[in-house]
Amino acid sequence: MTKHTSHEIDIVKSDTTKIDAVDFDNLTFGRTFTDHMFICDFENGEWQTPRIMPYQPMTMDPSARVFHYGQAVFEGMKAYKDDDGKVWLFRPIDNFNRINKSAARLAMPEFPEDYFMKGLTTLLQMDSAWVKPGKGNSLYIRPFIIATDPAISASPSNNYRFMIICAPAKAYYTGKIRVLIAEEYSRSANGGVGFAKAAGNYAAQFYPTSLAQEKGFQQVIWTDADTHERLEEAGTMNVFFRINDTLITAPLSDRILDGVTRRSIIQLAEDNGIEVQVRPITVTEIKEASKNGSLKEIFGAGTAVVISPISAFEHAEELFELPNIENSYADTLKDKMLSIQHNMAEDKHGWRYMV
Amino acid sequence: MTKHTSHEIDIVKSDTTKIDAVDFDNLTFGRTFTDHMFICDFENGEWQTPRIMPYQPMTMDPSARVFHYGQAVFEGMKAYKDDDGKVWLFRPIDNFNRINKSAARLAMPEFPEDYFMKGLTTLLQMDSAWVKPGKGNSLYIRPFIIATDPAISASPSNNYRFMIICAPAKAYYTGKIRVLIAEEYSRSANGGVGFAKAAGNYAAQFYPTSLAQEKGFQQVIWTDADTHERLEEAGTMNVFFRINDTLITAPLSDRILDGVTRRSIIQLAEDNGIEVQVRPITVTEIKEASKNGSLKEIFGAGTAVVISPISAFEHAEELFELPNIENSYADTLKDKMLSIQHNMAEDKHGWRYMV
Repeated sequence: MTKHTSHEIDIVKSDTTKIDAVDFDNLTFGRTFTDHMFICDFENGEWQTPRIMPYQPMTMDPSARVFHYGQAVFEGMKAYKDDDGKVWLFRPIDNFNRINKSAARLAMPEFPEDYFMKGLTTLLQMDSAWVKPGKGNSLYIRPFIIATDPAISASPSNNYRFMIICAPAKAYYTGKIRVLIAEEYSRSANGGVGFAKAAGNYAAQFYPTSLAQEKGFQQVIWTDADTHERLEEAGTMNVFFRINDTLITAPLSDRILDGVTRRSIIQLAEDNGIEVQVRPITVTEIKEASKNGSLKEIFGAGTAVVISPISAFEHAEELFELPNIENSYADTLKDKMLSIQHNMAEDKHGWRYMV
Repeated sequence: MTKHTSHEIDIVKSDTTKIDAVDFDNLTFGRTFTDHMFICDFENGEWQTPRIMPYQPMTMDPSARVFHYGQAVFEGMKAYKDDDGKVWLFRPIDNFNRINKSAARLAMPEFPEDYFMKGLTTLLQMDSAWVKPGKGNSLYIRPFIIATDPAISASPSNNYRFMIICAPAKAYYTGKIRVLIAEEYSRSANGGVGFAKAAGNYAAQFYPTSLAQEKGFQQVIWTDADTHERLEEAGTMNVFFRINDTLITAPLSDRILDGVTRRSIIQLAEDNGIEVQVRPITVTEIKEASKNGSLKEIFGAGTAVVISPISAFEHAEELFELPNIENSYADTLKDKMLSIQHNMAEDKHGWRYMV
């Protein structure tokens, strides 16, 4: 390995690459990582010199606060390669802003924008061979911050580690999923951390989701904890409902993640003349709409799958099947998103960012 | 280091001890750890051979699920040394049962009772010099389980690590604390994980607590997320209110931790002829009781401090001071708890457990 300082990032480049051992046609999401990772430690009240080094395990004290108190936040983003071999990000500043919003809610220090963007782009330039061209192929990017202070007092850590790791992701058609509407469990409270990409929000969903899976559903549609009437998220995605030709999604609150895909879908729908309503939508409303035939589509929206169409939902032991729609909003909007992300369509909102 | 297998635990004993370098009169809680730690890994669907080894940092992959999704649970317990040099635990089976209840809610595998008790007692026997005699001195014990699978898909981990680490804790009088009643933030939702010792519950409290601290309060009394009327927990403790001579604490729910100290305080109060009511108690009720002079005491109850008396609370910008009471329930019950824990009083409920 050769060590040299470049652009204010200490870089140790891997002498070898693991890429030749990777079967890009058979990738399991999130299990294969690229050759390098980005690290920046927060010590003595400030972020230290960032580093890029070969992807490798790291040493942690068993008392590190992240293990005990879940003081950890993350982001999910993607890089895409166009047919000219150029690598693109999609609205990266939105992810940067959100990780700091999440960090603030968890009493963690904000990460500097220049470190974030420089670290991200330098890492992607070094590992650009891992971004495969082709619509739907991507490199999934995981920035995260963890509390590393070796002390188990239940208070904010003094030391943190910001990292970026990257995993190649294949274009795949997941098929439509069936979802169970939550009647008992919930993912977030008023005044809680549901709007943040806080690590603990995700583990809390695993058990209720496993119960849904035992009943033959892939995901849970989360409802508000008070009444279980308001439809809020689908699994780890925001959720959209199409009633007649109107697209409806819940308004942001401290329970709902301000999804970059959610925001982009709303804009793209409006750009394409689709009426969008951002308002509370209830279980009762979609059950009635399903019964009278006006409920046309439900889909989840998030970075990992862009749009995940839903074929059926169950509530109070009653199953509701959604119709098969030609030229669905889900398919249309997903295709438009992918075309912008892969530099195959006009980017009128300036969402693409060249690495 | 000498490696040998004993009692089905692989033991690597430290050749040296760090104990001589420790100033037991000036301990910061949770920063100093004993010579050994207990580890047991869950792999291939089962818990592997447990190990005790010198306390040391460990290697983790940056993609380990605990860093990303907060799949982690813990317990807090204490060991005490009596004047004959015998080491005692307090209701350890309750902690064992609760870590598995927490684990189940976070879709983690349950840990076997014999591994837990054998690991705990063997570790304490090896590090017994770290348990100092004297009422209030103790060894704080931290069992915890973390998700170690190196993969960032948002689903339960396949691999886990169970550990026990121990930190000596000094008897200290924290003084009375001032608390702020939560009007906006909350710690848990109906149908959420508030009843579990889930890592993420704790980081979520740090920011609201820091806001309270800026206003001159040490802790937050958490209220229900729906109405912010029902008084539920104080910081990371259960909370008790004394109105006239009746002791009141909120009933258990999926938002409230089933505290071992809480349960013991209820029993000890009843044993001593104090009327205990386990029922919802509201902000309105304690404000009125404070105004008419019937609110005598508020205290938090938890393993770390046993009982933490509260001198004042603020709600809606209005400050309520509590009276100074001779022979307070807080002092009386704390002393009775400590006497049982330190083998200085009859243990009629069989709570003590000799190591």
